[in-house]
Amino acid sequence: MTAPKASPPAETDIEEGKAFSPRFDASGLVPVVVTSAASGEVLMLAYMNGEALARTIETGEAQFWSRSRNRLWRKGEESGNTMRVTELRTDCDQDALWLKVELGGAEACCHTGRKSCFYRALPIGEGKAAGIALTFVENERLFDPEKVYGHASAAKGNLKTQG
Amino acid sequence: MTAPKASPPAETDIEEGKAFSPRFDASGLVPVVVTSAASGEVLMLAYMNGEALARTIETGEAQFWSRSRNRLWRKGEESGNTMRVTELRTDCDQDALWLKVELGGAEACCHTGRKSCFYRALPIGEGKAAGIALTFVENERLFDPEKVYGHASAAKGNLKTQG
Repeated sequence: MTAPKASPPAETDIEEGKAFSPRFDASGLVPVVVTSAASGEVLMLAYMNGEALARTIETGEAQFWSRSRNRLWRKGEESGNTMRVTELRTDCDQDALWLKVELGGAEACCHTGRKSCFYRALPIGEGKAAGIALTFVENERLFDPEKVYGHASAAKGNLKTQG
Repeated sequence: MTAPKASPPAETDIEEGKAFSPRFDASGLVPVVVTSAASGEVLMLAYMNGEALARTIETGEAQFWSRSRNRLWRKGEESGNTMRVTELRTDCDQDALWLKVELGGAEACCHTGRKSCFYRALPIGEGKAAGIALTFVENERLFDPEKVYGHASAAKGNLKTQG
C-alpha cells in the first residue's frame, strides 16, 4: 500500500482562494505579460520557470527563462535595462502572470532598442489576413543594440539622440 | 531532384520588416495579451490558432482557441461579453500578439464575473515564494456566472447591484 498522493487544489481554490499555486506548462514555463508601471503599455511577453519566478518574488528584479538561450535570464544583465517590479498578479486559473515594472537604464525593453517589443500594428477589418502588411507604430530606438550587445544588429528605426 | 523549399523569413525581416508572419508554437497557437482600450489594464492572456487570428482580423471581433474546450471560441458567444478590437500588434519576433479591445455586454472579461482575469496580486520582496498568499485587488463581479452560464459556479466576490 502506498500513501495517497496529495490532490492538486480544486478549481474553486485555484480561482477563488488565496493560495498561490502557479500552473506551469509541459515545458515547466508560465507566460508573463510585462507592462510599464508608468505608461501602462505592454512591453513584452516573456516566460518564467519556477526558479525565475521565485527569484523575481524574492528580489523584486524581473528574471525570466530565456527560451532561445535555454537559461535563466536576469532582464538587463547585458544591456543594463533592468526591470524593477512594482506589482505581480496571477490570473483566474493561475496559468499566466502580469508584471508591472519600472524600467532601468535606457528605459527600453526590446532588444531592438525600442521601448516596447510591440512596435508594429496590423490593420483590422480591412480584408483577409493573408499577405497583410504591418505598420510601425513605435520606431524610436532608445539604445543602439550594436553598441550594447557588441555584435552586428539588424535593428532599424530612429536612434534617439543622446542628451 | 526536388524543388528547393521556400526559406522562412530571415530574422531581420521578421523583426524589421512589414510582412506579417506570425509564429505559432508546436500546438499551432500564439499567445495573445488582451488589454482594455479604455483603461489600459490587462484583461486576460488567451491563445489563437490561425483560424481564430484570421477571423479576428477580418471581423474585428476577438476570437480565440479555447484550450480547455479544444475548439474555436468567439469571445462572448455565451455571456454576451464580446470584444471589439481597436488595435492588434505583433511583437519583435512575431510569436506574441497584443489586442486592445472595447468590452461589450457587462464589460467583464473574466468568466468569474470580474472585469479582468488578473484580480489577485502577490507580495514582492517580502521573503520566499513558497507558501505565498495572494491578495484580492479587484473583487467586484459585473455579472453572475451562475445566471449567465446556467450552471453552478464557485465564483465569489461582490456582485455589482443591477441598476
